[in-house]
Amino acid sequence: MQVTHQINARWIITVDSNNNVLEHHSLIIQNDVIVDILPQSAASKYTPEQTTTLNNHALFPGLINAHTHASMSLLKGLADDIPLQEWLNEHIWPAETALADEVFVKDGAELAIAEMIKSGTTCFNDMYFFIDQTAEVAIQAGIRAHIGIPVIDFPTRWATTLDEYISKGLAVRDRYINDKLLSFTFSPHATYTVSDKSFKTIQPLMDELAMPMHIHIHETRSEVDKAIAEHGVSPLERLEKLDLLGPELISVHMTALSKSDIQMLATYGVNVVHCPESNLKLASGFCPVLALIDAGVNVALGTDGSASNNDIDMLGEMRTAALLAKGATNNADALPAYQALRMATINGAKALGIDDKVGTLEINKQADFVAIDLNSIETQPVYDVISTLIYSANRSQISDVWVAGKQLMASRQLTTMDEAAILEKAKQWHEKVSPFHHQSY
Amino acid sequence: MQVTHQINARWIITVDSNNNVLEHHSLIIQNDVIVDILPQSAASKYTPEQTTTLNNHALFPGLINAHTHASMSLLKGLADDIPLQEWLNEHIWPAETALADEVFVKDGAELAIAEMIKSGTTCFNDMYFFIDQTAEVAIQAGIRAHIGIPVIDFPTRWATTLDEYISKGLAVRDRYINDKLLSFTFSPHATYTVSDKSFKTIQPLMDELAMPMHIHIHETRSEVDKAIAEHGVSPLERLEKLDLLGPELISVHMTALSKSDIQMLATYGVNVVHCPESNLKLASGFCPVLALIDAGVNVALGTDGSASNNDIDMLGEMRTAALLAKGATNNADALPAYQALRMATINGAKALGIDDKVGTLEINKQADFVAIDLNSIETQPVYDVISTLIYSANRSQISDVWVAGKQLMASRQLTTMDEAAILEKAKQWHEKVSPFHHQSY
Repeated sequence: MQVTHQINARWIITVDSNNNVLEHHSLIIQNDVIVDILPQSAASKYTPEQTTTLNNHALFPGLINAHTHASMSLLKGLADDIPLQEWLNEHIWPAETALADEVFVKDGAELAIAEMIKSGTTCFNDMYFFIDQTAEVAIQAGIRAHIGIPVIDFPTRWATTLDEYISKGLAVRDRYINDKLLSFTFSPHATYTVSDKSFKTIQPLMDELAMPMHIHIHETRSEVDKAIAEHGVSPLERLEKLDLLGPELISVHMTALSKSDIQMLATYGVNVVHCPESNLKLASGFCPVLALIDAGVNVALGTDGSASNNDIDMLGEMRTAALLAKGATNNADALPAYQALRMATINGAKALGIDDKVGTLEINKQADFVAIDLNSIETQPVYDVISTLIYSANRSQISDVWVAGKQLMASRQLTTMDEAAILEKAKQWHEKVSPFHHQSY
Repeated sequence: MQVTHQINARWIITVDSNNNVLEHHSLIIQNDVIVDILPQSAASKYTPEQTTTLNNHALFPGLINAHTHASMSLLKGLADDIPLQEWLNEHIWPAETALADEVFVKDGAELAIAEMIKSGTTCFNDMYFFIDQTAEVAIQAGIRAHIGIPVIDFPTRWATTLDEYISKGLAVRDRYINDKLLSFTFSPHATYTVSDKSFKTIQPLMDELAMPMHIHIHETRSEVDKAIAEHGVSPLERLEKLDLLGPELISVHMTALSKSDIQMLATYGVNVVHCPESNLKLASGFCPVLALIDAGVNVALGTDGSASNNDIDMLGEMRTAALLAKGATNNADALPAYQALRMATINGAKALGIDDKVGTLEINKQADFVAIDLNSIETQPVYDVISTLIYSANRSQISDVWVAGKQLMASRQLTTMDEAAILEKAKQWHEKVSPFHHQSY
């Protein structure tokens, strides 16, 4: 049978419901879809236009970064080793107010998307301004992207009023409505920067347009305490009153949660995005990942923006999530490697409402997948390929990346982006951004 | 003036007492010693035999891995996501009993030392068996090594009785007594596996031979609780009674510490080695790094062995240390990047008693240094080169490594080790070791 592509791999990590790992199998691709996965010895029934043999490699589903601010890659390392509010108020927001225009967002998105593809991310859930720029860069790059329409109750360079935030955002969505890789969310910044009035404007639009909501919430204990002082209820309870809790809610951070909060998240089917490195770096608290999983909550994984991480490397983020869960719960069998991988793949897909299309390597899914070369001193011997992937491997070993059957990286070379030009533009931003730098020594 | 080598670098991170970072400077090497550091524009007074220009690179002091078990690299990923005692008793120790002979130790040490050099480690403090093998591999590789003479109160393939552990160990030390890069410690495994009688045999030898002691101690709360139940005192108090507390003690892990323990460590000048990734992975607890530093204790950094990490990457370990300290103390300005770098360099040198020779880039120090290429999308723009190094850079960006003026890696190629042969040997161990594998899914 004629097909477009056959990839023979040493291992295929399927992330299916049994966490099956297949050895010496072939992935058969027809255009953008996985049409078969079978032993290499049985693959001769296909006549592929192209065959790729990866004898030292593991294939795994493309990683889904369920929360980031791509363009903030231009701000990585700008203000380290200081708390969230000082970081936001004294460095990040002033820099953004001064600099975050169309060109900044475009150049930042290119820098971030190049870094994401090179580290095996095939889909990202973004929240930022000038979303037309991010959308355009994502399309050019060929990466899958969920773009957040920002809403915040103060003026920025992108918009001034609630109406403007929403109308500008929806206009961009309308422009790309037929793009297969692009999707849009409403992304109110946080409950402490968005009023009930704004939420009440968004809520009916979510239903009408079948759009999810993506929000920072319960990021720190102090956020929750202040909200209770101001509104009499926690941010989560406030969203409940506003009829915003449900499977369409992508709630990011969630460090300060009571038992009843966790039960409420489970009852409503709210998705949680855990951002362990950002939470550590800004000392925001620990997301109770295990308690959430035990309660049946879908927990995905995100890097947050590069300014609070300071990379957007989902391989490293999985490792941190797996290690931190053990330390935080005093339980060495907490969040085993395979569960961290599920968070970064199928759970991310569920959070974004695209688990019918991506998140595992299974027949009829989109061909979003990554190859990693494990033939290195850092990753041999391999006793358990998922452990090797999560605990020992390094993003630099990722060799090839495909999204919807299109190869975006081949042997470490980006095929859709000009890496040298992106690097030069990043360097050019140094002079403009550096006045906002915080020096910690 | 004639010198052997001039390296021109974009940045030189000195790790001197002021954390000075020099831009566009040259490092001048005469044989194994740094003889000058000066602006590139002033370097013409030297006539170097060799000049290396690294316009996109930062130089920093070679990293010191203050606690590892190099040969356990062959066991990485063997038994993940299970607690320390199960990990030791049911997987690691049975595998070692069956397999850890001269060849295992030699092949494992080669694998580890190759990984260490490729990730910028120039000195490691080891604890394992068949130390003649590790010593020989270290010498061939040209890396600086502190080799622990193991002592444990049960028989292993290396030795059976206390006398044999000590006499075999000292015989190896005598053989290499004139080697400039090699040094030896006494390395009793832990207070729960070594009797007072054994400690009392070692203690006078430490004085007589001017040798430090390197030991796992206070690794978990349960270790401390059991010790108090058995001996009436904590492991640390037991060592105090045995007259073993002092600047010659390299105490590893130290997660379960009372305020008085911390004061005792400070009073005696005991060195602590923090192993954050191993402590997380085995859920051993959190070493109170900030409280120790505040009390004036010297805190170094180690990866532990690859079986509980699962890499021996000090760049990653610094990042984890810096992130974890913030999360564990709920304080985003805890353990800033430059302090993590000090732990992995000068503090490690202090712990090993070689801070007069290595640990910083300063005139008259040994030429142990590393170059990292920051000209990549992952590490541009650079606002603060130490932040970039700790939070954004990846070990694969390390390009060149020198120990005592000798280049051990040039443009990612090892100069003293056969990487392909090492890799093949590692793969050959897979079959023998895999019966001891723990599968977590």
